[in-house]
Amino acid sequence: MTDLNPTSTIRILTTGGTIEKSYSEADGTLKNRASIIRDGLIASLRLPYTHLELESVLNKDSLEMDDSDRQLIADAIARTAGQGEPIVVLHGTDTMSDTAEYCHRALGRPPVAVVFTGAMKPMGFIDSDARQNVTEALLAARLLSPGFYIAFHNRVFPVPGVRKNRETGTFEAVAVN
Amino acid sequence: MTDLNPTSTIRILTTGGTIEKSYSEADGTLKNRASIIRDGLIASLRLPYTHLELESVLNKDSLEMDDSDRQLIADAIARTAGQGEPIVVLHGTDTMSDTAEYCHRALGRPPVAVVFTGAMKPMGFIDSDARQNVTEALLAARLLSPGFYIAFHNRVFPVPGVRKNRETGTFEAVAVN
Amino acid sequence: MTDLNPTSTIRILTTGGTIEKSYSEADGTLKNRASIIRDGLIASLRLPYTHLELESVLNKDSLEMDDSDRQLIADAIARTAGQGEPIVVLHGTDTMSDTAEYCHRALGRPPVAVVFTGAMKPMGFIDSDARQNVTEALLAARLLSPGFYIAFHNRVFPVPGVRKNRETGTFEAVAVN
Amino acid sequence: MTDLNPTSTIRILTTGGTIEKSYSEADGTLKNRASIIRDGLIASLRLPYTHLELESVLNKDSLEMDDSDRQLIADAIARTAGQGEPIVVLHGTDTMSDTAEYCHRALGRPPVAVVFTGAMKPMGFIDSDARQNVTEALLAARLLSPGFYIAFHNRVFPVPGVRKNRETGTFEAVAVN
Repeated sequence: MTDLNPTSTIRILTTGGTIEKSYSEADGTLKNRASIIRDGLIASLRLPYTHLELESVLNKDSLEMDDSDRQLIADAIARTAGQGEPIVVLHGTDTMSDTAEYCHRALGRPPVAVVFTGAMKPMGFIDSDARQNVTEALLAARLLSPGFYIAFHNRVFPVPGVRKNRETGTFEAVAVN
Repeated sequence: MTDLNPTSTIRILTTGGTIEKSYSEADGTLKNRASIIRDGLIASLRLPYTHLELESVLNKDSLEMDDSDRQLIADAIARTAGQGEPIVVLHGTDTMSDTAEYCHRALGRPPVAVVFTGAMKPMGFIDSDARQNVTEALLAARLLSPGFYIAFHNRVFPVPGVRKNRETGTFEAVAVN
Repeated sequence: MTDLNPTSTIRILTTGGTIEKSYSEADGTLKNRASIIRDGLIASLRLPYTHLELESVLNKDSLEMDDSDRQLIADAIARTAGQGEPIVVLHGTDTMSDTAEYCHRALGRPPVAVVFTGAMKPMGFIDSDARQNVTEALLAARLLSPGFYIAFHNRVFPVPGVRKNRETGTFEAVAVN
Repeated sequence: MTDLNPTSTIRILTTGGTIEKSYSEADGTLKNRASIIRDGLIASLRLPYTHLELESVLNKDSLEMDDSDRQLIADAIARTAGQGEPIVVLHGTDTMSDTAEYCHRALGRPPVAVVFTGAMKPMGFIDSDARQNVTEALLAARLLSPGFYIAFHNRVFPVPGVRKNRETGTFEAVAVN
């Protein structure tokens, strides 16, 4: 007999970015330190049939990432995707589409849905968009067919074909050449 | 030239339910009064390319709904679906699957995605699941093909085939006879 | 040598009231069950030099209290005040001034400050006044000379001389006959 | 006939500090820009018989203040105190006691209570202590006799006689020479 209500696993790879910047009361800085998403956000979501596996790949502002960082992320995605479960990648917004396209070029079509997301405002702020974006990315990871995507502000974009719009502080579709 | 970033409309029909119960400081009651989702929840989501149209159909605890209420909801869905845009229905959890199945029987396959959701705890509480469920329903409404669904706690269930589990306080898949 | 930074104890007596009503997802009721102030509110205050001792005297809506309940509260205050540390009493707003006056008549001038407070909206709501009122009561308990008081919405009232204004949802000074 | 419930005025002077640092989504910085306390904090307090008058004196991290800044603050206090109503000064914690002592030396005993406060974490964070400290300072301003004070984490300290403890992230009493 089939289990109609199996627990599904979603694998979260964290790389840093604004979404996971935390504030130090000792020195007043807002920076990427350790990953804070488990206690800072996931603990307050209701996920009765979802098991999350977290892996911290990097803890960087995405403006400081170079191709060796992107290769690390691509390697982590390749390794993780082999387990057959969808992936959410937390990443800074400034170069999120660069990293997603790098992974797309490096890995081709992945065997699972790989959904990048992040936030315009760190998750610790009252009016952060982190909770909304992570909630969307987790649902998109369950619903989408294999491929690379960015989920942000109630939209899901296939990669390539998406860029951050710095004026408006969100992501937009762009023509793919 | 195609607009790559059109604003999409999602139509929200509110019917009451725990999600929209509000507290009266005058008499200490927690009840369905007017719809409170616009100021109480939607205003804090970032929806740069999504336009929401709200219509209040009912303001009832779903345990007090009968088939004439369900027919009102089905009528509202039929009328609204004719506009060709996806629909989110806010509804009490106790009889959500009854109403969704009633609409499915009454209307057959709708021309758009119709996603029911609600909450175990009213949206005004700090630890309410309303924000999570509405965020999921709004994304599901954009991603899903036409049909009736319930979105809840990081899962999307086709209707029929879903029931509330009162022990665990969430929804689960059930066999369809 | 004097310790310039001793830890002070404040004793909190809980009696129920709107401030401590909690929501049951199982039956949808908002009621006084066990005291929830420790995890629900106090845990998020910063009290590095304050030690709180909590005692649950009652768990009642104050509209349901009678003089035998008030005597229980007066007895608890008398017993607790003997320890020489200030007291905060959490109480429903509807009969808070009745109970405070009852205690004043029964006990006369107490040896410590006894500060009643509560809330117009239960502490679990996002826009509850519970945190503000408890923060004020805890500071008032440290600053005031012995006597009975109500602290509410940035005011401190000696007892007798204060009544709830049901129209405006706050407390006001009244003439003492 | 005496009005038993007059509206009291408290004058808030803002000078910047961690409490009022705000996040820019455009450049990712957390800095003192304009004063944000009215919409960001005061709007959510219940102050039915309190009128707040805000004046922005400076918008600086207190580590960047020098004596010319302190003189500006002292001048603002002297001018404002002349109106006869208590004063709350929002200030960075790092040099709060320096500024308060500077004002005490420059002005002597003021004609009203002047209560300095601030926060270890900016008010926009979910777990900021700003709301607690401002709530305490506003009540202390009503209750205390004329003089300079720091209100912080459920304590009120006369000035001089208080220093920030950087190890523990709070204020402590120190011996006055």
